[in-house]
Amino acid sequence: MKLVSFEHAGSATYGVAQQGDYLQPSADFLRRYPDVASVLRGNALAELEAGLSAATRIQGAHTRALPVIPNPNKLICVGLNYKTHVAETKRADSEYPSLFLRFNDSLAAQGDEVLRPAFSDRFDWEGELAFVIGKGGRHIPKAQAFEHIAGYACFNDISVRDWQRHTHQFTPGKNFPGTAPFGPYLVTRDEVPDVTKLTLETRVNGQVMQHASLADLIFDIPVLVEYISRFTPLSPGDVIATGTPGGVGDRREPPLYMKEGDVVEVEITGLGVLRNRIGTAA
Amino acid sequence: MKLVSFEHAGSATYGVAQQGDYLQPSADFLRRYPDVASVLRGNALAELEAGLSAATRIQGAHTRALPVIPNPNKLICVGLNYKTHVAETKRADSEYPSLFLRFNDSLAAQGDEVLRPAFSDRFDWEGELAFVIGKGGRHIPKAQAFEHIAGYACFNDISVRDWQRHTHQFTPGKNFPGTAPFGPYLVTRDEVPDVTKLTLETRVNGQVMQHASLADLIFDIPVLVEYISRFTPLSPGDVIATGTPGGVGDRREPPLYMKEGDVVEVEITGLGVLRNRIGTAA
Repeated sequence: MKLVSFEHAGSATYGVAQQGDYLQPSADFLRRYPDVASVLRGNALAELEAGLSAATRIQGAHTRALPVIPNPNKLICVGLNYKTHVAETKRADSEYPSLFLRFNDSLAAQGDEVLRPAFSDRFDWEGELAFVIGKGGRHIPKAQAFEHIAGYACFNDISVRDWQRHTHQFTPGKNFPGTAPFGPYLVTRDEVPDVTKLTLETRVNGQVMQHASLADLIFDIPVLVEYISRFTPLSPGDVIATGTPGGVGDRREPPLYMKEGDVVEVEITGLGVLRNRIGTAA
Repeated sequence: MKLVSFEHAGSATYGVAQQGDYLQPSADFLRRYPDVASVLRGNALAELEAGLSAATRIQGAHTRALPVIPNPNKLICVGLNYKTHVAETKRADSEYPSLFLRFNDSLAAQGDEVLRPAFSDRFDWEGELAFVIGKGGRHIPKAQAFEHIAGYACFNDISVRDWQRHTHQFTPGKNFPGTAPFGPYLVTRDEVPDVTKLTLETRVNGQVMQHASLADLIFDIPVLVEYISRFTPLSPGDVIATGTPGGVGDRREPPLYMKEGDVVEVEITGLGVLRNRIGTAA
């Protein structure tokens, strides 16, 4: 299934994408599971799918998208997880994944205008694969990692490069509001039998800026789940963005940044195209 | 007022500390403002105080403490904010505050046993002053910073040093569950006319490990509020821990870490003593 979170008739809701329409679960199901994260907590994906024949069909065009998980309990981002990106940043290899956190209000949705702060010109793309936890746990061994994953989505970890480098901690440049588009769908794990077969591409105004195989992650998904769950418990709906490959704007010669009116797209095989226009904050 | 969050008769609640007892607001007030953060959001501190004559008196001994704000929207920590600590870490001075984030489940309460992970011996104290946002905002100028602060509390940013230094990002070593005691009270701002007059002391088993004046912050509270609110909106109940002075265990010769049975205390003038025993996670 391709799960979508969206606003319709003034309320936040969700459904299953099908041919441009969204199938909204029954009122009873929505009362028990008011958002996608609660479906995951309730282990209710199978019940959701079984009830689709009785679902209400809503035209996608009459909705406004939300981040696929609007309010995760934990939103964890991996830095420096492709050799091509480590090389362009001229950083040394590391034995461990580099992790930073985002606030939920730094998320954005499919189609949202992403606002560059007026006081920085260094607004840069970072196309990524994100995965969402379906089954919580602590000390999850690598071999069981995929059992804990509900699904996958495109993620754009848009960065304000000067604020990211004010100090050695990336926090400020990664937490401007609405700078991390996340969607358009949460594609459930059963539709992605082998995540290493996926290809990620980031385009700005149609020009390919990043193109990589998910087989090229330095710390693959099982390693990330094992490492992260050693220091913090994971729970359903938690989001982990796996890092960006080489080709960011900041490391180009000359550097290239996004400006008002640019359209940035992140596309991953089978996960759709995450498309956002750039604006400027007032 | 000294606000306390606690569990009583199986429920999370809060009140005002007075001579070892807690004055619990009326049922009507609690229905409108179920926790301390909602009192702040509702700008209802004055109403809380006015209603204290009709409050229920609960013996503190019959309660279990909670972190003073158990569930902040944002929990932001400042690193390297005293010259004595910057010097002992041998880091260069920085033009900007270094910021990292904690998950809410990394908080602990007054009296909680704080669990060192079994797989690290490098469990270190970091006594700090934390402040809590009372009035939200974005782009808050330094001159108005204090108007946005509800109050102050002791904070112990206990760190797993090896995990903190796996990479340049501090996230893992700062996010083990229950490693950041926060309390015992949220002391409202009216009781702290000049924060630079406060003294912070950290003791382990009664021995003074850190002793500093809050006048020695490199980035003072107005600067922190202005800088942070430039990249992220602040809202009532958000917590900012202002960093630790020199004297951490990891930088001593020889290094000194906390082990099972140790008692760590953070005391700040007028804010009480935050006391926790160290245990070992299973």
